[in-house]
Formats: sequence, structure tokens, C-alpha cells
Amino acid sequence: MTSGLRAWRNPLRDERDKRLPRIAGPCGLVIFGVTGDLSRKKLMPAIYDLANRGLLPPGFALTGFARRDWANEDFGEVVHQAIKDHARTPYRPEVWAQLSEGIRFVQGTFDDDNAFDELARTVRELDEQRGTGGNHAFYLSIPPGAFPVVTKQLARSGLAAQDSEQWRRVVIEKPFGHDLRSAKELNNVVNDVFPEESVFRIDHYLGKETVQNILALRFANQLFEPIWNANYVDHVQITMAEDIGLGGRAGYYDGIGAARDVIQNHLLQLLALTAMEEPVSFHPRALRAEKVKVLSATRAQGPFDETTSRGQYTGGWQGGQKVPGLLEEGGFAPDSITETYAGITLEVNTRRWAGVPFYLRHGKRLGRKVTEIAVVFKRAPHLPFDSTATEELGENALVIRVQPDEGVTMRFGSKVPGNTMEVRDVTMDFGYGHAFTESSPEAYERLILDVLLGEPSLFPMNEEVELSWQILDPVLKHWESQGAPEPYAPGSWGPPSADAMLARTGRHWRRP
Amino acid sequence: MTSGLRAWRNPLRDERDKRLPRIAGPCGLVIFGVTGDLSRKKLMPAIYDLANRGLLPPGFALTGFARRDWANEDFGEVVHQAIKDHARTPYRPEVWAQLSEGIRFVQGTFDDDNAFDELARTVRELDEQRGTGGNHAFYLSIPPGAFPVVTKQLARSGLAAQDSEQWRRVVIEKPFGHDLRSAKELNNVVNDVFPEESVFRIDHYLGKETVQNILALRFANQLFEPIWNANYVDHVQITMAEDIGLGGRAGYYDGIGAARDVIQNHLLQLLALTAMEEPVSFHPRALRAEKVKVLSATRAQGPFDETTSRGQYTGGWQGGQKVPGLLEEGGFAPDSITETYAGITLEVNTRRWAGVPFYLRHGKRLGRKVTEIAVVFKRAPHLPFDSTATEELGENALVIRVQPDEGVTMRFGSKVPGNTMEVRDVTMDFGYGHAFTESSPEAYERLILDVLLGEPSLFPMNEEVELSWQILDPVLKHWESQGAPEPYAPGSWGPPSADAMLARTGRHWRRP
Repeated sequence: MTSGLRAWRNPLRDERDKRLPRIAGPCGLVIFGVTGDLSRKKLMPAIYDLANRGLLPPGFALTGFARRDWANEDFGEVVHQAIKDHARTPYRPEVWAQLSEGIRFVQGTFDDDNAFDELARTVRELDEQRGTGGNHAFYLSIPPGAFPVVTKQLARSGLAAQDSEQWRRVVIEKPFGHDLRSAKELNNVVNDVFPEESVFRIDHYLGKETVQNILALRFANQLFEPIWNANYVDHVQITMAEDIGLGGRAGYYDGIGAARDVIQNHLLQLLALTAMEEPVSFHPRALRAEKVKVLSATRAQGPFDETTSRGQYTGGWQGGQKVPGLLEEGGFAPDSITETYAGITLEVNTRRWAGVPFYLRHGKRLGRKVTEIAVVFKRAPHLPFDSTATEELGENALVIRVQPDEGVTMRFGSKVPGNTMEVRDVTMDFGYGHAFTESSPEAYERLILDVLLGEPSLFPMNEEVELSWQILDPVLKHWESQGAPEPYAPGSWGPPSADAMLARTGRHWRRP
Repeated sequence: MTSGLRAWRNPLRDERDKRLPRIAGPCGLVIFGVTGDLSRKKLMPAIYDLANRGLLPPGFALTGFARRDWANEDFGEVVHQAIKDHARTPYRPEVWAQLSEGIRFVQGTFDDDNAFDELARTVRELDEQRGTGGNHAFYLSIPPGAFPVVTKQLARSGLAAQDSEQWRRVVIEKPFGHDLRSAKELNNVVNDVFPEESVFRIDHYLGKETVQNILALRFANQLFEPIWNANYVDHVQITMAEDIGLGGRAGYYDGIGAARDVIQNHLLQLLALTAMEEPVSFHPRALRAEKVKVLSATRAQGPFDETTSRGQYTGGWQGGQKVPGLLEEGGFAPDSITETYAGITLEVNTRRWAGVPFYLRHGKRLGRKVTEIAVVFKRAPHLPFDSTATEELGENALVIRVQPDEGVTMRFGSKVPGNTMEVRDVTMDFGYGHAFTESSPEAYERLILDVLLGEPSLFPMNEEVELSWQILDPVLKHWESQGAPEPYAPGSWGPPSADAMLARTGRHWRRP
């Protein structure tokens, strides 16, 4: 049956070139929650783009599972439309034709044994019809509350069973719990069915090029590592700012808030990559060992009244438009104390970083959409400039821009042209978009391929997740006792306490 | 007489702003060799531009001395034309009107006592008519062979006499001798008449912004100094390449050559600024002390057969044009062994630089006109990249571009977008032209103002000149015993020995 299957091959691809990504072996992917936005806007297009780039096996199978009363063809049409609407690579009928032959749909609810038995049958058929070889990944694009029932169903129906001949993997999306205790419970539920090495936790930020480039930047160069420590670094700022609000997301967001939604996962992962020691290799085990080490050494610095900031956006004007406050957004409790801005101060108690504060912040409806890591260096000793026109030397900074306009910016002091010795800060920039003709794979593309390849480097493991909650829990607990968050205006950079938490030590946030 | 004089004032100038350049006090400038190219293309325009920027005193006087039979008015017209042809700032009739009132001409030869007596009278009159206050600088834009007679005449006629009320300064252009012995003789001749603090040796390269920015870059920042040493730097390359030949310059160049013309002064000064320790201040004394220290620790590394390169360009094609070899250029001896390419290897025996070779090169008719200092760093240890697609990590480099397009370039390794960990070298750039709205003063403008202000930071002193010859003499002596230089093609990057001198230790020149 499988002999007629052909992967689309890029004729320019030289198979001996080891810089090329590996091609996934025989396998299939089952998506739960296939009717959701993520599935339609990200997962389906990413699968097509991978197929188009020749990175999926010829007989790749995609199965949807949902309550909707669809036939295979109906689901196929949904996938087709999602691809046409959202795929990054050009549409090729022959790629779609081959992919569509492996598309299946199973109708059912999560507590329906028959549906899961049907799913098991479908998967076995795919092994025969498409040569997927018993290798299947299950993507749980569903609320965490449904994890226990789905994983139990997968176990019961035999879908989770793997051996040395065939693999089964499960992909889960954040939030990975809402505190340390619930995260442990969640991990127990998943690990009851899937061993830890088969669990792939998606943090799509870690699939971004710049995030991976932190490793290249730090360790492929001789320029940066010598100054990457407490001797030269004054502090580190990790920012993820969004300019949009939470309209339509109350169901997910109310009661969760900015710290749980972003700091616990994205920002603490960025911190780990920024602060960790050099791994002996980029092997996932070696990488995880370093991340775990540095997260173990990290804790939130108090007193939290002074070192953290918690805000909620009010209604007002932003970019010439009148926008509602969180409490007026549909679906939020009118007395919701969910924070939409969170800033925390961390200390990393390693020899490298002792005494260097790491400031993490995330907020909605801020001045600009930007994610960046700014390593801010100590000022140079002023001495030789005392007799010059330069009154104060600036702070050097190395800024890793994660988005938008991925790249690196370096800020340093330069002489102002003219007859006097005046120094002013200038920047130099490196932009991925300009430097490389290669295009960045979309984060989900990269991550889905890694799941199918069993390459876990970019997925946070159980232990990292729990350590992150351990870091955040004391702050969350403190905030719970504090009543409503501070209000801040839309388009601003957070509540007054956001600036105060740095100003107490004479520092200030970058205005990115 | 002086009360009617007004300096042109920039209405936007805030006199309390200490970042503004100081304005020269009452003074005059006498130029010997006033009919030469340098005078017409650089000195006269620079004086006008300074006046136009309001940096000269209202009664500033400019006196020309030459054999030509000119009246004051004839000389005034020459200056006027030079300004119109070559000044950088807009022509303003009122600035020219005021400047032209202070223009004088004295006709004579260097051995003519009467002419110098006449010059002394003229200068005294200027003190009365223009209020130059007895403060006069003498710019010797003449061959070094004429220095003894002119300085003696200045002494004889009383023009060199200064006291606490009035200063007299002498400005001389390279070459400052052609070896250590002749440099000492020359210094003795000049210092017999002018004390060392009144001698301003022009090296116009040191007036360039980027050169001064080396100090700002190194010492105003925390980023660079920690890696600016033998622990991290592999080697340093200092290049001054020109794409033109020596047509019309035989009289000056034949028997001098590339090493004496450029390496002895420009490139060794760049080396001193790059390699010196941090001065306690930018006071000229403190700066000179550091330059002298580092030059004292510097010597040419042998064996010179392997560590140096000496070439002479042949005829051929360059940029689509047929160009003559040096031996066919008019005025050169048909068997001239004058080198037009010189490369040397230096060791700087300080704790900071032990073991780090400094490669200096200069040549005519090379591939491109460029001057730069490239600090090339050691490769990062490869270990974590062993298992990746990256076969070899590149070398980081910090390149200070002196000309053209003054600025800074940093080369570092970055991840190539895609699913594998491939690292490729990329650059980020900072360009003065783009970063500042302030325009760079032309080098001669800056240096002439510094002479009039008595600000000697940018002028190499006696001791530096002699130390530079001490470094170069052994190489020159070796070359003298070697017969004709190696030929190299126009538009190339020098003779085979140029590459060989780096290749012997596995290094290579940057192709800028």
C-alpha cells in the first residue's frame, strides 16, 4: 500500500548536506481540539508547510478528533481552507493531494469509550494504509481540565502503548498548572500514561529563532561570554509587552493573569537560557541539565511590596482609539483581580550572577508589542573623562530582540563628532531578516517537526516546569493577600509600582 | 584698531555649553610653502571653515611666505580661490571680508635675511593692526631639508622668541626623518629653536574622528575593555590601503617608501592608541605617557624574511584601466628599489598583549582604499557545537573603520535560520555619518585649531617619533640588504610574502 507514496522533494536539496533539517520518519499526528483557533491558524498550516518543504514522511497521517459531526471529507475541507488561509509556503496541488490522502476524522466526546476505540482502529488502519509504522503523536489542544480524561482514554484504548518498535508521544500546551501543587498533579496525570521522555510541552516562544540564537550568540562567540557575568553586568531586563487587551479571552485568562500566563513559562525559560552555564553539548539532556541547574538557583527577591509590580489596565485611549478596561471586557468578573501586568525581581544565586538582579515583566495594553532580553552592563569608570565634556557615561547594553524584527542590538558610547571629547550612546544592529536569505521556520513548524523527530531540546521538561512554579509561587501568594491590582492606563508601561521596583535601586526600565 | 573686529558668531551657539569647542585667543598663522598643494587644498580652506564656525579670534591673521612675486592682494586672491574651491562650509561674504583683512604676504627665499626681517616686521604690524597679541604659529609646509635654515632664520629674526605674554609655535609635517638617527638630528634642529611643547608635528590621521573615537570606544564602555587583551584577542591587523599609485610624487617618495611614509607615523600611532593602557585622564601629558610606554614595549618580530613583506607594484590593469608600474612612473629611478607595499609583524611586550601579534600593512595600488584597525578574537571553544551542523566557528572581530565610511563593525557568529544549529558569521555596523547629525570637523580644521589653542593631545611628540623609528629601523636595515622588492599586480593585495607572513602561523589578512 505504501509503495506509491512519494514525499515532495525539493530538487535543490542535497541529501548529503548535514545542515539540512532531518526528515521525520513514518508517523501520524492526532489533534484533539481540532476545531479551535490554534489548530486552524497554526497547527494545520505548519503541517502543510513541513510537507511542502519535504520534511514529512510520504505517508504522513493527520487525524482530527472532535465532537463535531464531520466526515473525513468535511475535516479535509477544513484543513484545506486553513492551509489556504494561513500557510506560509506556496500552495502546491500535488503536496496537498498527497497530504489529504492521510487525513482522517473521528467524532466523539472525551468520555466516549467508543470514540477512542474508533480512534485506535483508525490509527491501526493508517499504519496499514499509509505506513505510519505505529508511530503516533497526540496533540492535546484542549483545556488542561480535560487532560486526565483524555490521557486515561488513550491508555485504556491502547493508544498510549509503545515499545522499541513504535513510539507514542503526547504534546501539551500551557498553562502547565496554575501553581506548583497543581503542576505536580498535572504532571502526575500525564506521566501516569506517558513516560517523561514522551511528553512534549509546547512553549512556542522556544521555537523562535532568536531564542535558539541565544545559545549561538553566547557560546559560538568569544566576544560576549567573558563579560556575561556579575563582574560586568549590572542587571538583566526580560520584557514581553503586548499592546492588545484581553477581549474575548476571559475564559482562559480570568483568574490566571500575566504572571502565570507568560512569566512562569516564556520569561523564565528566556531567563534560563540567558543565565545558564555553558552546556557540554546541545544534546537535550545536557541543555536541560543546565536549565534545571540555573532555575534551581533562582528565587524571587523580596520584599515583594517593593520588588514586584502588579497591575490591571483601565479603559482609556490608545493609538487614537477608545479601549475598554479589563473589567469592561466581556466575560471578566466585574470585580476581577486578575493582573494584566506583572513585574518581578529575581536573584540567580550562582557564582556567575550573584548580586545581579533579573527583572521580568509582562503586560497587556502596553505602549508597544515587543519581546526582548536586555543585558545592561555596569558603567565604565569615569575617571579619564572627568576633564572632558562628558558628564556621565551611559550604560552599555546588549539587547536580544525576540520580536518583532528579530535580531541583536548593541548600545555603546561613541565620541560625538567635533572638537571636544563628548561621548553619547549609539547603537549597532543586526537583524535576522536582513542578514540571512534563509527564512526562519515558523515556531510551530519547528516544534511539530521536533515532536515527530523525538527531538526534545526546545521543550521544557517536568522538572523545569515545577521549578518555575516554585520560583513564582511566593509572589503569587503575596499578591493574593493584596486585593485589587494597581490600575494603569492603556498604552502606558504599567502601573507606578513597575517603575518603582527598579527605581528603588537607582535603575530604570528600557523604553523599547 | 581692534575694537571694530567681530568674530562671526553662530546665533545658535550657547556660550555656556562646555561641549562646544573653545575659541582660539588672539593669534596669527604664518605658512611657509604657501604655494603648495597642501596649503591650497587643506590649510587655507580649514582656516576659513574655522572662521566660519566662529572658532577663530576676530583679528586672526594669515601670512604667506614664498619665493613668488606676489602682493598682499595677489595672495589674498589665491586664498579666496582656494576657499571657494575647497572649503566645506558655505561661503559667507562677511566672514571672508573679515578674514581677508588679516591676510599678508612676504616674498623671499629661506636664506634671505631681509625677507625674514620683513616677516618679523609684518608680524609686529599685525599685532598692532589686528591685535594678534604676539601669538604666532609657523607652519612649515616645506621639505624637511629646509627645516634647519628656516628655524635658524626664525630664531635670528626674533620670530621664535616667546615669553609668558606671547607664544610662538612651529608646525611640521612628516616625514620626521628617515631613520632614528636623522629623526634625532631633525628634532635637535627644531628643538634648538623651539622648546618641545611648542613643536606641533602634524599627523593628519590623528585628527580624524575615528582615531579619537578609539579612546572613547575603549574607555567609555564596559563592553570592550574586558576582552581587550591577550586572553581573548588572537591578533590585531592595522591596514592602510590605497588604490592609487605614485604618479607625480617621485620627488617626495623615491627612496622613502611605504614603511617610512605611513607605517612609521600613522600606523604606529594607531597601534599605540589601540594597545596602550588606560590613561588617568585625556590630558596630553597623560595620553603621551601611555603612548610612549606602549611604544617602548613594541618591537618588530623576526625573522624578517618571514615576518615582513616588501613589494613594488608593476604595471597592469586596474579597474578597467591600464596603469604604469612604479618604475614607469615619471621621476622614479628606473632601478628604484623603493617599496610601495610594506607589511610588518610587531610584538607588544606588555602584560596585556604578550603573545598577540600586531600586523601592520600599507600599500599603494591595492584593491581598495581603506584604513581600518581589526581586533580579531580567538575562536570560542568548539565543544558544544561538536554535535551540530557547525563545522568550524568563525573568529569574532571588532573593526574600527577609519576611512572611508568611518565607524565600527562587529563580526560575530549567529544561528542561521532553520531547524539545525548552524552558525554563520554576521556583522553589525555603526556609522558615524548615520548616527550623528553633527558633522565631523575635517582633520586639518581640528588640528589647526588645536595648534592655535596650544592643545597638543593629537600631535606625536619627539619621543614617540624616535621610538617609532627605533621599532622600524631593524626592518629597514634588513630590507636594504635584500635588493629589489617583490613585484605585485595593481589592484591586488600585495606580493605573495604579504599573505605568507600571516599564513606561517595559520592566519590571514581580512579582505576589507
